[in-house]
Amino acid sequence: MFASEAYPGSAGWVMARLDALAAFTDEPGRITRLAFSPSLDSANAELIGWMRAAGMTARIDAAGNVVGRYEGLQPDRPALLLGSHLDTVRNGGRYDGALGVVAALAVVERLAKAGERLPFAIEIVAFADEEGVRFGGTVLGSWALAGRIPEGWRERVDGDGVRAEDAVRAFGVDPDEVPAASRAADPPFAYVELHIEQGPILEQENCGLGIVTAIAGASRLLVTVAGQAGHAGTVPMALRRDALVAASECVLAVDRLSRDKGAVGTVGHLRVEPDAVNVIPGRVRFSVDIRSGDDAERKILLAEIRKAFDAIAVARGVGLAVEITSDTSAVPCAPVVVEAIGDVLADMGLPRLELASGAGHDGIAISSIAPIGMIFLRCVGGVSHDPAEAVGVDDVALGIEALERVCRRLGETSTCL
Amino acid sequence: MFASEAYPGSAGWVMARLDALAAFTDEPGRITRLAFSPSLDSANAELIGWMRAAGMTARIDAAGNVVGRYEGLQPDRPALLLGSHLDTVRNGGRYDGALGVVAALAVVERLAKAGERLPFAIEIVAFADEEGVRFGGTVLGSWALAGRIPEGWRERVDGDGVRAEDAVRAFGVDPDEVPAASRAADPPFAYVELHIEQGPILEQENCGLGIVTAIAGASRLLVTVAGQAGHAGTVPMALRRDALVAASECVLAVDRLSRDKGAVGTVGHLRVEPDAVNVIPGRVRFSVDIRSGDDAERKILLAEIRKAFDAIAVARGVGLAVEITSDTSAVPCAPVVVEAIGDVLADMGLPRLELASGAGHDGIAISSIAPIGMIFLRCVGGVSHDPAEAVGVDDVALGIEALERVCRRLGETSTCL
Repeated sequence: MFASEAYPGSAGWVMARLDALAAFTDEPGRITRLAFSPSLDSANAELIGWMRAAGMTARIDAAGNVVGRYEGLQPDRPALLLGSHLDTVRNGGRYDGALGVVAALAVVERLAKAGERLPFAIEIVAFADEEGVRFGGTVLGSWALAGRIPEGWRERVDGDGVRAEDAVRAFGVDPDEVPAASRAADPPFAYVELHIEQGPILEQENCGLGIVTAIAGASRLLVTVAGQAGHAGTVPMALRRDALVAASECVLAVDRLSRDKGAVGTVGHLRVEPDAVNVIPGRVRFSVDIRSGDDAERKILLAEIRKAFDAIAVARGVGLAVEITSDTSAVPCAPVVVEAIGDVLADMGLPRLELASGAGHDGIAISSIAPIGMIFLRCVGGVSHDPAEAVGVDDVALGIEALERVCRRLGETSTCL
Repeated sequence: MFASEAYPGSAGWVMARLDALAAFTDEPGRITRLAFSPSLDSANAELIGWMRAAGMTARIDAAGNVVGRYEGLQPDRPALLLGSHLDTVRNGGRYDGALGVVAALAVVERLAKAGERLPFAIEIVAFADEEGVRFGGTVLGSWALAGRIPEGWRERVDGDGVRAEDAVRAFGVDPDEVPAASRAADPPFAYVELHIEQGPILEQENCGLGIVTAIAGASRLLVTVAGQAGHAGTVPMALRRDALVAASECVLAVDRLSRDKGAVGTVGHLRVEPDAVNVIPGRVRFSVDIRSGDDAERKILLAEIRKAFDAIAVARGVGLAVEITSDTSAVPCAPVVVEAIGDVLADMGLPRLELASGAGHDGIAISSIAPIGMIFLRCVGGVSHDPAEAVGVDDVALGIEALERVCRRLGETSTCL
């Protein structure tokens, strides 16, 4: 395999391995590699082979994650953890997750080819369950490694009615043994992840790499507007209580207030009842998703949105009920890692562009056992979770280089050693 | 049947017959009597029995409508046509349509019981196909009576894949003979229909009866907004082209401009794609339904709405395409009938409340062969097309009385005789 491949550890070497991983899928013609699926099992086996070829020890941990280790000069020192995830959404792209795993492998490949070892071990993890697509949320993956397994995870079911505990068992994971995956008692001294941005900011700013300052917190609401259905031809405007007109004002309020606060706010889901051309909408349900790297700002935004909704409901004479379906705090990246990445980018002559991650990442879980940091890599058009996901090979070269330099830099600066 | 019933031709007599008709349904427990259905056939047979009991001749015409005739003193004079429809929507009410048929029968019943004949015949029609639910539009019914059968009606199919020509054949109608139902060569001198308002204006104005001035014209649009889907967490607000935010502004523009013009405008149908909590809407399709008794005003409103849509699309950076799916002109009620109804309400000491009908009615078709007019009767909460449809028996008494007086008045004043 890879007979005609690029130089070991180079960007071309990474791209070829990402292409190879893309072939592991549950749906031919698309990339669909859900948590604990047969295709993930095959991808994991391939990765373990590559890890061993790079001189690492490699194993599947008690939660189904791949963990490889490249030993350091001082075996008793805590390791540096690199990595990302190998599971994907349905019909996803080949870079989301896999890029961070293979780029980390490229760093080790380079060290191994040069016969070099750092003072500390480098561990590379490929998490088995980041996207949360299969079970409506992540059940194990990085949570298991952090020793924070979600309550009731066994009873979650996938779209085919398969319980999570049966799914992981079929994957070779003993549900009773999952706690053994925890690294809480043996934590890495830091966790660094390279990941595609999944957004358009780096492209817009003409930067190949960016420094993640925080993984944004998110509030999700499910809002029900109760108006009065009626005949579209016979009810005068003055006597209407049109649920969609009220909901439309709410959509615009979310947009306007989120802009004002420098956050992001989205109404992605909206359903009209009865949804007929000639009937005034009687009921509308819609979602709200607001995210910010600053929890206090997000709380203020949430309060302002709810206040605006209440005022709209009164003015339009409709009922309005808000259910908060989730609320997660922002996770700041550790200053020691942020600074190390910043120093490295400066050394490389690259601009220092800081941004919050609006998407969730494995670092959220790992932050409870180690200082975390992330490097974002520009993706074409900001597109992700789509077959059109693409990155530039020059950016990948920069990403590998930065990741390697960050490993060395953290070895020098980290106060956690 | 009706052994203990109220006085013949009274409001109680009408209500008892409406209760009896409600039992004819294709769906037990609901009132569903679609065009050319077995339950409509049974209801028609019952009505023909009542007509004959009232001294009328009665038949099913070549298009499946019931036509009864109470002869006048001068058999050669054109007849006065009264009536409405006996078909219903799915899970409809017991007054929409049926009230106008049975109230007309009550007028004849009173004349017959008194042994009285007017100078002209009274004909009562129960149209077989007004709601248009079964074949996505009316295929025969009043159009057949007016000699204006819709092109291509035979090939329309219902939800079960039954072609309209096969449905009417099963109903006892020979598709080739339908043109014989036309009364274009033998028109009534006027057509008067009593119908529930199906809206809240009469209730709001505390009036039992209202005079319909016109049946509103309607424009229907299907609008597609094409934005850019993206991750709800990673795309900054400034870089978004959110199709739902743009569509929400369109919904509010329809509401605001329709109010300004004294018309009605409704977005009843709206679908979001991909409709996921964490994805910025990439595409939204929605309907617009605007109606006005004044065609010129409706055209101006339509132009203003399209102009507003275009401005919204430019400001929000989205594509916007408008398809006009239907456009029907307003049908004014004939001044001679409007005035006759107005005189009668004045004689009865009732207020003169004029309103346009936002809903379509059989009078649209009949207006091409005769002067038409309609009396609206207050319905509870303006509710129609619903099992909760209700009317007050006192209003029904006023309705029968007004309809009888209008027959006499038209005989005196009509210039069409």
